[in-house]
Amino acid sequence: MVSDLNFEVSSLGKGAIPSPLKGSSFAKVGERVAFPSSLSELKEYFEAGKPVPSFERAGPGENIYFDPSKLKCGIVTCGGLCPGLNSVIRAIVLCLHHSYGVRRVYGFPFGYEGLTYRYGHEPVELTTAFVDRIHQQGGTILGSSRGNQDIGEMVDTLEQMNIGILFTIGGDGTLRGASAISDEIERRRLKIAVVGIPKTIDNDISYIQRSFGFATAVSEAGRAINSAYIEAKGARNGIGLVKLMGRESGFIAAYAALAYSDVNFCLIPEVSFTLEGFLNALHERLKKRGHAVIVAAEGAGQDVLGKTGERDPSGNIRFQDVGIFLRDQIHSYFKQTGTEITLKYIDPSYTIRSIPADANDSAFCLLLGQNAVHAGMAGRTNMVVGFWANEFTHVPIPMAVSKRKKLDPEGWVWNSVISITGQPKEMG
Amino acid sequence: MVSDLNFEVSSLGKGAIPSPLKGSSFAKVGERVAFPSSLSELKEYFEAGKPVPSFERAGPGENIYFDPSKLKCGIVTCGGLCPGLNSVIRAIVLCLHHSYGVRRVYGFPFGYEGLTYRYGHEPVELTTAFVDRIHQQGGTILGSSRGNQDIGEMVDTLEQMNIGILFTIGGDGTLRGASAISDEIERRRLKIAVVGIPKTIDNDISYIQRSFGFATAVSEAGRAINSAYIEAKGARNGIGLVKLMGRESGFIAAYAALAYSDVNFCLIPEVSFTLEGFLNALHERLKKRGHAVIVAAEGAGQDVLGKTGERDPSGNIRFQDVGIFLRDQIHSYFKQTGTEITLKYIDPSYTIRSIPADANDSAFCLLLGQNAVHAGMAGRTNMVVGFWANEFTHVPIPMAVSKRKKLDPEGWVWNSVISITGQPKEMG
Amino acid sequence: MVSDLNFEVSSLGKGAIPSPLKGSSFAKVGERVAFPSSLSELKEYFEAGKPVPSFERAGPGENIYFDPSKLKCGIVTCGGLCPGLNSVIRAIVLCLHHSYGVRRVYGFPFGYEGLTYRYGHEPVELTTAFVDRIHQQGGTILGSSRGNQDIGEMVDTLEQMNIGILFTIGGDGTLRGASAISDEIERRRLKIAVVGIPKTIDNDISYIQRSFGFATAVSEAGRAINSAYIEAKGARNGIGLVKLMGRESGFIAAYAALAYSDVNFCLIPEVSFTLEGFLNALHERLKKRGHAVIVAAEGAGQDVLGKTGERDPSGNIRFQDVGIFLRDQIHSYFKQTGTEITLKYIDPSYTIRSIPADANDSAFCLLLGQNAVHAGMAGRTNMVVGFWANEFTHVPIPMAVSKRKKLDPEGWVWNSVISITGQPKEMG
Amino acid sequence: MVSDLNFEVSSLGKGAIPSPLKGSSFAKVGERVAFPSSLSELKEYFEAGKPVPSFERAGPGENIYFDPSKLKCGIVTCGGLCPGLNSVIRAIVLCLHHSYGVRRVYGFPFGYEGLTYRYGHEPVELTTAFVDRIHQQGGTILGSSRGNQDIGEMVDTLEQMNIGILFTIGGDGTLRGASAISDEIERRRLKIAVVGIPKTIDNDISYIQRSFGFATAVSEAGRAINSAYIEAKGARNGIGLVKLMGRESGFIAAYAALAYSDVNFCLIPEVSFTLEGFLNALHERLKKRGHAVIVAAEGAGQDVLGKTGERDPSGNIRFQDVGIFLRDQIHSYFKQTGTEITLKYIDPSYTIRSIPADANDSAFCLLLGQNAVHAGMAGRTNMVVGFWANEFTHVPIPMAVSKRKKLDPEGWVWNSVISITGQPKEMG
Repeated sequence: MVSDLNFEVSSLGKGAIPSPLKGSSFAKVGERVAFPSSLSELKEYFEAGKPVPSFERAGPGENIYFDPSKLKCGIVTCGGLCPGLNSVIRAIVLCLHHSYGVRRVYGFPFGYEGLTYRYGHEPVELTTAFVDRIHQQGGTILGSSRGNQDIGEMVDTLEQMNIGILFTIGGDGTLRGASAISDEIERRRLKIAVVGIPKTIDNDISYIQRSFGFATAVSEAGRAINSAYIEAKGARNGIGLVKLMGRESGFIAAYAALAYSDVNFCLIPEVSFTLEGFLNALHERLKKRGHAVIVAAEGAGQDVLGKTGERDPSGNIRFQDVGIFLRDQIHSYFKQTGTEITLKYIDPSYTIRSIPADANDSAFCLLLGQNAVHAGMAGRTNMVVGFWANEFTHVPIPMAVSKRKKLDPEGWVWNSVISITGQPKEMG
Repeated sequence: MVSDLNFEVSSLGKGAIPSPLKGSSFAKVGERVAFPSSLSELKEYFEAGKPVPSFERAGPGENIYFDPSKLKCGIVTCGGLCPGLNSVIRAIVLCLHHSYGVRRVYGFPFGYEGLTYRYGHEPVELTTAFVDRIHQQGGTILGSSRGNQDIGEMVDTLEQMNIGILFTIGGDGTLRGASAISDEIERRRLKIAVVGIPKTIDNDISYIQRSFGFATAVSEAGRAINSAYIEAKGARNGIGLVKLMGRESGFIAAYAALAYSDVNFCLIPEVSFTLEGFLNALHERLKKRGHAVIVAAEGAGQDVLGKTGERDPSGNIRFQDVGIFLRDQIHSYFKQTGTEITLKYIDPSYTIRSIPADANDSAFCLLLGQNAVHAGMAGRTNMVVGFWANEFTHVPIPMAVSKRKKLDPEGWVWNSVISITGQPKEMG
Repeated sequence: MVSDLNFEVSSLGKGAIPSPLKGSSFAKVGERVAFPSSLSELKEYFEAGKPVPSFERAGPGENIYFDPSKLKCGIVTCGGLCPGLNSVIRAIVLCLHHSYGVRRVYGFPFGYEGLTYRYGHEPVELTTAFVDRIHQQGGTILGSSRGNQDIGEMVDTLEQMNIGILFTIGGDGTLRGASAISDEIERRRLKIAVVGIPKTIDNDISYIQRSFGFATAVSEAGRAINSAYIEAKGARNGIGLVKLMGRESGFIAAYAALAYSDVNFCLIPEVSFTLEGFLNALHERLKKRGHAVIVAAEGAGQDVLGKTGERDPSGNIRFQDVGIFLRDQIHSYFKQTGTEITLKYIDPSYTIRSIPADANDSAFCLLLGQNAVHAGMAGRTNMVVGFWANEFTHVPIPMAVSKRKKLDPEGWVWNSVISITGQPKEMG
Repeated sequence: MVSDLNFEVSSLGKGAIPSPLKGSSFAKVGERVAFPSSLSELKEYFEAGKPVPSFERAGPGENIYFDPSKLKCGIVTCGGLCPGLNSVIRAIVLCLHHSYGVRRVYGFPFGYEGLTYRYGHEPVELTTAFVDRIHQQGGTILGSSRGNQDIGEMVDTLEQMNIGILFTIGGDGTLRGASAISDEIERRRLKIAVVGIPKTIDNDISYIQRSFGFATAVSEAGRAINSAYIEAKGARNGIGLVKLMGRESGFIAAYAALAYSDVNFCLIPEVSFTLEGFLNALHERLKKRGHAVIVAAEGAGQDVLGKTGERDPSGNIRFQDVGIFLRDQIHSYFKQTGTEITLKYIDPSYTIRSIPADANDSAFCLLLGQNAVHAGMAGRTNMVVGFWANEFTHVPIPMAVSKRKKLDPEGWVWNSVISITGQPKEMG
């Protein structure tokens, strides 16, 4: 139980410049948030005399590392769309401008492509006027792309443009890229901070309890689920099938099942099932209730499907499409059993990921962006802003990408899903 | 120009019972709404001494045909879902109950299936309590099915249950069925009225200017179009492709293009194009603007696709899927030209058709339902409730199904679409 | 019945310049839309040999009056906010630019104030980039103000700036102002067209069947009504009272009652009631059902309230606030009768009028704006764009402001309201 | 720093009956969640050898106290409406039924009134069918009332009806009532558990990091703020003033300011200001930017207003209305300074509190309800379900009501509000 997790964040050096933030309640030096919250776990550490794993708490410090009047910053958004990207961009620009007086902020277009020279993308100057109302719009004003680019070339760009802090907004792959950029910066002994804001609509980055856009996505998923329910109820033996995001973790599907109580089967990557087990359970449900609503996370049932062997430009393994697969399997199963069904398959992914952040995600994005700026100004690097036990934290990128956060099939979330859907705990 | 359109509606007989509606401003006997609104057209009729085609105006009459205390009514919903179905059901039940004192109203489950005995569906008693809040929910509380059933068997059911008025809520196919039922009733010399409420999310029933659910559908289509736009803008050479309803008429696609000005190409059944013409125009747009949003009605480009030769259970010809087709063609075209694109294809059909009616459709459904009841109580039969020149009207079913309403490629709607999308008037 | 209504629109002169609109299906010269749609009324005219009142149909003509390359246009928005103002502004700018090649369009800030020199408001250049996404935002990008300004001074401004077409978006008062401006222009023998787009959230301008923003307002009113219903149901003897717009006509309140069937009392200016009659009916309802929802149009019950004698800057008579009045009267009545009630009063006016146009209003605004441009380019003046029998029309301003459009207490809308609310037809 | 907070929860006795929950991962006996998360604070406790304050973790246990086949439960909702009330009721009923097999659940109508006999309210049987779709509706299906009732009489009712667990959903006042009921139960040596679900739209109950409905309220507040912004921008010297909930704590106003970046002044109870200071700052803002948006929490500026001396039926001190007060003060200030302004005042409170829970609150309500059932079944009493460090917890009611949770004027939330609004840190 007692592990040696180390959440020490890298730093370019000690901040020697007094912060221009007036009247701000500065974070105390060395303030840390404990990683375990369980009393017994904490006791174990203390009794064993071992250091309790903990995060540096985020927030403005009394001193800063960069001179705002000389500082130039860059922002890049990578990977798939996620509600709140523009809110984060805006928060970074506004905080740099209003709190620190940094006047030169550039956006690199279309993800890491924008940091190379081969695509010819021009950096965009991000003024406060430019970002004024972008948060009301989904997507990213900077554009995005998948996949990494040549690390050396990207650091060349930062060097040539004299960028002091690079803010990268992206997921797992982007963070690995950011870490590689940071390593190259260190190798070249440059003074460039790389600060990540974790973007994962699936909420599956480790050591971070909440990620922006997730709540908005769960909310929007409700439209598709409601359609599936209405369609299922509107036909004899009606089945509504919804595919939701969640390549490796089923948080969106699980929370959507909790939020919209019309889901009868929730399939997630963390919980295996056999096709036979699932189809039999579905058949039982139809016999009893005449309709069924199924929600399947993108990565559910991978052992049932078999891999395609392909990878997308971000390097993620390309899965066979679980929605199409289930749709076809359900059709042929009921054809065999001689039961007429009506199945409607809904894939709302693009509609979900392209909406703007809702109010709560919007406030959360603002705080994430501000804390990223505070961290960067303080010279922290190779880190992402996290959220733990209700506090914003600093997490070293290598820790954040060391493994995926998964939904615990024995934990309270999944237990509640089983309880509210009424689906069998085992389908296999 | 001067045509002999005849909109005379059938009647079971003269109403002899005084209406129980208190203080109501009854429709004047013989009140009619002119079909042409053009002054010059009207002149032609009058100058030629020819009868001006006109509709009987809907509304409560001073006398009614059925004795409310003995009357039993039935309601059936058929075909695909459409926003407002439950609002219409509710309006019929409430108006029968509160305005006329009719206490026995039955819903036949799952479309015309419910009027036969072979499926074993039990009629549902529709009380005012039962329908109280159903309008807040999409779909149809009665369930639906596609396709017709044995006409004789359905009339048997009506006869055995002693139904006086059958309200059928459905589209073209349903109305043909209703008309056949009405003919069989006449053949058997029964006194059963068949009153249709036209359901066409595509707004494509002739001689009816507005149909319920259409406006709600256009509105909801905006979500998909906005997603397509955000996705297209978020990627280098981003293309957003949205398939919307509209098998034979492009009203939804056209009005969505007018309502959401982010559409760059609107493809509808009424306007032909060649694949080459369209792809070249798309390429031009990408070169100039870097992104494009395409909206294609379900029935667009049929001459380009080729028919599948199949028919669905309602007897509609099954088209090849234009969305999938265009997606694949666009991909291969740009592969050939060596242009990297990012295409996102969105098919929001089920999500659109399963939402509840918006406020204005909701009010419209109420008025449709009330006018259907007034018509039925007056003994009108083999008719649908229409809307023309801002008035509710009676339309004989044979006229309503005689041809499809189409969008006029030379009319003001399509002209405005061309103007706001900026797409070439000819792509062929 | 046979009236001499004359809807002849003024014109600056015959258009001599061929329209640059390519491939457009031009409106036929002299195409007109009949004012009556009733067959018997039409017959009366023809049989009496009298001209049938009719509107000029809107749309692009083959020839235009102004030379687009030299033309400068102005836009002004006046009076209270209304959903769709920005959509209309945008439609005008885009149509002038894309369809006619007019490059110089100016917005006058803060209503007619912006046309005078005394406030020092600078005209804003309205480019296509500037108006690109303004339709997604409520209110008016130009700002507004109430009341008229010195007519001479306003025409001075137009003359000095060399404006060829002035588009005024506003209600009754604004149209009177526009007409006065037009008269002064004529007196000075200037060649300036004044084209109005009728803005009335209340939908109360005569000879125009639909006005933009009205449908959106009815829709948004539903939130307040639903709150009132939920609050009323949540308390013993709960009463929810909602005040809606409608100074002289009760269309919003009536349609909201039709759309949201939770309204039990709908009070509008067109239908008188006595306080005693209303309070007794309310008491009856509480006894029977334990809760009640009341919707009152702003101008309801004026004979009960008594005038304040004041006028607002637009010259409208200031009414006593019917919402506050009813709230207080209901409280004191039930205090007297010894019945404990819980009353929640909601006034959602600002929230309703400041939202953006919904999809259907948005499309409607686009078409209004385009038709206003076509009319202006053709040299039409002292007119507003109307909508009649499903066609866009030209209406002379003097006709449009000659009287208010009112809801007919004997017509089908109010009959349906009585039927769905269950309120007594007479409360007095 | 080292305090002796004691979060030990009362219990009716040891659970001796094996839980019927199949395959559930039961909470470990004695599992606790640490109250402090700061590493340094934790160290202090351990180094001082003092017990770390901690909460019992919520969740199903291996044994239960009540025999489900004999158990009868009651639910009551008290105080003002809050989004999610019906979701909590539904979660309790479904969990009791499906997880434990408890078949008899009763709702007491209209708050604590329903537990007395003097109002004649009949308890409502809450079946799974009855609660099926209530979560889609705002308010409370049970009705509510303010204020306490005679404790003895309420315990009489519980005793006579043989209720085993009473679930009370309410705020501070309700919890005090629940605690008094619990004390009386103990005095009578009855075996009745009293389990609270904390309802506070203001999120101001101590020792609980999140309360249901709060996030939905912040979200809905955005409509009013956006209206205020649009109205303010639409007029010369436009001011939009919005009053939000927050009698003693400004969380809603503060988070709304973070979520909707159009707020320029955020006034909350925790931060004092003088009228002069505020009005001067407002004047400065108008001079610079021409418009301003103000959000005031209900309890803001109490030292400026002066108390009314009255109390509402729940015993809360009645404040003078800060919204009306500020509106009037702003008007008279600018009249004196000779500046024409346009002020729009919006009070959206009823509209906010009566909407249904959004998706995330809905899921949260489900989990709260389930955990309340688990706690009750285990015999816990005089407690509320809490949420701390991402875990559901048990909190003794006396601790929860011992003081209000307040927004820390030196903490990161308020710092971010100051930063994003641009308002002066001190206005006094």
